[in-house]
Amino acid sequence: MSWEDLAAKRKAQVLDAIPQEWRLKELPSGDSVMSVPAESGLLSADELTITESSAAALVKSLAEGKLTAVAVTTAFLKRAALAQQTVNCLHSFLPEFALARAKYLDEYLAKNKRTVGPLHGLPISLKDQCRIKGFDTTMGYAGWIGQIDEEDSVLVSLLEKAGAVFYVKTSVPQSLMVCETVNNVFGRTSNPRNKNWSPGGSSGGEGALVGFRGSLIGIGTDIGGSIRVPSAFNSLYGIRPSHGRLPYAKMANSMEGQETIHSVCGPICHSIEDMRLFMKAVLQEQPWSYDSKVVPMPWRVGEEDVIKTKIASGSLTLGIYECDGNVLPHPPILRALKTVQEKLSAAGHSVSAWEPYKHPFAVDLANRVYAADGGTDIFAALSLSGEPAIPNIKDLVNPSLEKVGVNDVWAIQLEKWKYQMEYLSKIREFEERTGRELDAIIAPITPTAAIRHNQFRYYGYATAINVLDFTSVVVPVTFADKAVDVRPDGFTPLTKIDAAVNAEYDPEAYHGAPVAVQIIGRRFTEEKIMAIAEEVGRLLKL
Amino acid sequence: MSWEDLAAKRKAQVLDAIPQEWRLKELPSGDSVMSVPAESGLLSADELTITESSAAALVKSLAEGKLTAVAVTTAFLKRAALAQQTVNCLHSFLPEFALARAKYLDEYLAKNKRTVGPLHGLPISLKDQCRIKGFDTTMGYAGWIGQIDEEDSVLVSLLEKAGAVFYVKTSVPQSLMVCETVNNVFGRTSNPRNKNWSPGGSSGGEGALVGFRGSLIGIGTDIGGSIRVPSAFNSLYGIRPSHGRLPYAKMANSMEGQETIHSVCGPICHSIEDMRLFMKAVLQEQPWSYDSKVVPMPWRVGEEDVIKTKIASGSLTLGIYECDGNVLPHPPILRALKTVQEKLSAAGHSVSAWEPYKHPFAVDLANRVYAADGGTDIFAALSLSGEPAIPNIKDLVNPSLEKVGVNDVWAIQLEKWKYQMEYLSKIREFEERTGRELDAIIAPITPTAAIRHNQFRYYGYATAINVLDFTSVVVPVTFADKAVDVRPDGFTPLTKIDAAVNAEYDPEAYHGAPVAVQIIGRRFTEEKIMAIAEEVGRLLKL
Repeated sequence: MSWEDLAAKRKAQVLDAIPQEWRLKELPSGDSVMSVPAESGLLSADELTITESSAAALVKSLAEGKLTAVAVTTAFLKRAALAQQTVNCLHSFLPEFALARAKYLDEYLAKNKRTVGPLHGLPISLKDQCRIKGFDTTMGYAGWIGQIDEEDSVLVSLLEKAGAVFYVKTSVPQSLMVCETVNNVFGRTSNPRNKNWSPGGSSGGEGALVGFRGSLIGIGTDIGGSIRVPSAFNSLYGIRPSHGRLPYAKMANSMEGQETIHSVCGPICHSIEDMRLFMKAVLQEQPWSYDSKVVPMPWRVGEEDVIKTKIASGSLTLGIYECDGNVLPHPPILRALKTVQEKLSAAGHSVSAWEPYKHPFAVDLANRVYAADGGTDIFAALSLSGEPAIPNIKDLVNPSLEKVGVNDVWAIQLEKWKYQMEYLSKIREFEERTGRELDAIIAPITPTAAIRHNQFRYYGYATAINVLDFTSVVVPVTFADKAVDVRPDGFTPLTKIDAAVNAEYDPEAYHGAPVAVQIIGRRFTEEKIMAIAEEVGRLLKL
Repeated sequence: MSWEDLAAKRKAQVLDAIPQEWRLKELPSGDSVMSVPAESGLLSADELTITESSAAALVKSLAEGKLTAVAVTTAFLKRAALAQQTVNCLHSFLPEFALARAKYLDEYLAKNKRTVGPLHGLPISLKDQCRIKGFDTTMGYAGWIGQIDEEDSVLVSLLEKAGAVFYVKTSVPQSLMVCETVNNVFGRTSNPRNKNWSPGGSSGGEGALVGFRGSLIGIGTDIGGSIRVPSAFNSLYGIRPSHGRLPYAKMANSMEGQETIHSVCGPICHSIEDMRLFMKAVLQEQPWSYDSKVVPMPWRVGEEDVIKTKIASGSLTLGIYECDGNVLPHPPILRALKTVQEKLSAAGHSVSAWEPYKHPFAVDLANRVYAADGGTDIFAALSLSGEPAIPNIKDLVNPSLEKVGVNDVWAIQLEKWKYQMEYLSKIREFEERTGRELDAIIAPITPTAAIRHNQFRYYGYATAINVLDFTSVVVPVTFADKAVDVRPDGFTPLTKIDAAVNAEYDPEAYHGAPVAVQIIGRRFTEEKIMAIAEEVGRLLKL
């Protein structure tokens, strides 16, 4: 069978798995599909309520027996089915598997009068790098179709221990090395707010699904923005924890074994409350006993409390930058930064300029790592079926290029370490100069609001943070507004890519697109940065 | 100037720095030099008392003003001078620098009525990978002579903040990749207990100096036993913390930037009490604010307490193995393991057989990493002066060999990760089977007692633990005894190297040689493993 036929067959499986009664009679005509769940008539009022609830509220109701896992799972299956039909975000749709699990959980609770764990009955969506025993992981490669996984990824098995229900796997871009979501098997995923926009990537299937509320907590991964960009483009919260905080083991990946810049996993969700539920549930399962790369660091309430105290007294100390020296963000992003700064300042916190130290160097270093093997690893995956590379990664996949050698790898790693330490010294200098501890840095995560398809060009706001291995939490701030986000006069590009990114801005085309910022902290500051992100979110709603 | 002349001149600097009045009139004639300090007449009674004290007791007396930093520093300078004259362990002898620092500390205390920090006035010896601004680091390479360091290593600067005094740097084997101590600049370092034995390596200068009590706490590094072997061969305690616990930044190294198996730093000392003093002092300085590879993990008293409670109730759970499947240890080591097992069992603890999972695989993996660049990096350092490789590393340094490529590096790293996780699963299986949490594993650290020069062949007991990145603490147990450690009958070698190691055993030649074991815990279990090591040491003295 040709790879095209294999791909078409595999893609059809997803739709085939959706029961007829959950199918839309006709597809919506507008750019946005956000109103489909309410208007389709396919979800009951209760199901709409469930899917528009929070994960924290759901697990409470589930534990109290006010909701059944079957009811909750059914609601999310139905909403995910609508997401698939409207934005094409799924890799696998697993209603029977999910409902059997939900039934087991309901019976367990009825019999034992206690939950399996803190996520008892909560459906969690999985990016198609996560392996579930008995199902396939393709990462959008035609050549991987039908390779059935024989064991769960560590995170999957720990979430299961904590009581989660798995019901979908979500689509990714071929190779994962792109911040949009398109591959030769499942095609392109769109942004539920506007079909002309990307949901971001590489966890773009998750971004679209969670943005659509076909899931409340979705697992993403991030080596260069792949959790944070879909979070930003779908008006969601997302965390890129430091490497070693959450278990990545036994997930599929590109360039497996590459440890110079570690890909990390983390949740994409609607609130910090839900993010905290997830983080605490995973850490409670002691992931370090399963994944050797995880540091034995339980959830640290004391770290949260430090921030809460500062919030209460209006004494957070924050740095902020709006341009990394390579690419100036579009007007909606600059406005969002200004809004966040004003809200925080009005609450008494100190927000001062942060000089983004040698970010262009960091971005270049990251690119050298991503391209270190000339795409040999990705090329091998493509060669299994003979499918072509998607246009977005054509430049990356060129195995005829000279690859770096072992001494080059070591040299790059040494450069990375030195750069990371220089960054720490800049933080210490800031703290010595101001006499205040720097709690976080606020920055763009992309130079654009949710972007039009095939226009994602500049990854640097994300990748510099991956090089530093800093914790980063994305906070949704606002939406692009053609009335206020006008093109400024007198733009002089900093770089060639700056000119290209700037040229892409069109107030009309981006009107209504989600706009976010990232809040960055040093390594292993998840508790602190989440607490700050929560406060920023609260202030934005005042 | 030829490299031989440069080396001779540099070596002479060390002796030249020793004042005439601290020089031995004649060198001792016996094999052991352990009695030299007491018999030389060069140290006063007070100086003997000081150098035979503990670091913990000294910092207490220093803080209380009962001892001056000048007096303590002078005592250790003198004893280190004797060590240099008898076992040739130093790279740099720095009396003026040290005494100026000690004087400053005494004045500070007198003026401010408080110490600079918890190590106020304590001399700490530094392996010659540590950089001190204004002095050179040669790592025994003739080509590096005279390159003056422009900044301190991070650990050095944090120890200085904590109040330490630096007075010597100690010798290492050329390239560091050897568990003996010999190079073309400073020659060979001997074991103070017997000039025919090695002090181990690569932190062998430290091992010999601390063993001689020319230092109470010395800084070593360990990528394949280099802290633990010198600790074992000099009847000392030493810790190989997990990577990321202590700051390694800005130290010199071979194969800098190699991150597949991280070299780590740690103390070599006379007791766990002193080790704890050191660890707490360094962690108190928040090394993670300076070295990006350090995890923000303060000293965790709670982890210690868990072990203390188990000790009090005689309920530790320990695994033990005597052979790793590659090389059977010599009789003194097997006896030491049996002794430790008996002492622990008698105290009520559970000690059961641990199957050393695929250690030969781990050892092979480590060797592939160490040899990944065919010695290109080391060869470059040798080429600076034209000096030859020491015989011990000749096989390692062969840049004409094919080097591994970037995809090979990734493949090795993936193998490493999988192996580490398989090991964790073996621990979980043990725990599920026994219903008990595994607190530690007791094992040989070398197959031999302190070894005769040029006989160190098998690194595997150490390197398997480096591959796992497990915490390991060496505990001195006993001394080889020709009366009891007889050659067993009917030895059948497991491997070629097993035959060679076995052939080296000679009860007469090893009589009196220090014998140790290592106590191993999962990643980042320093507090726990140190508490267990302390208890083992206590039980051995009963």
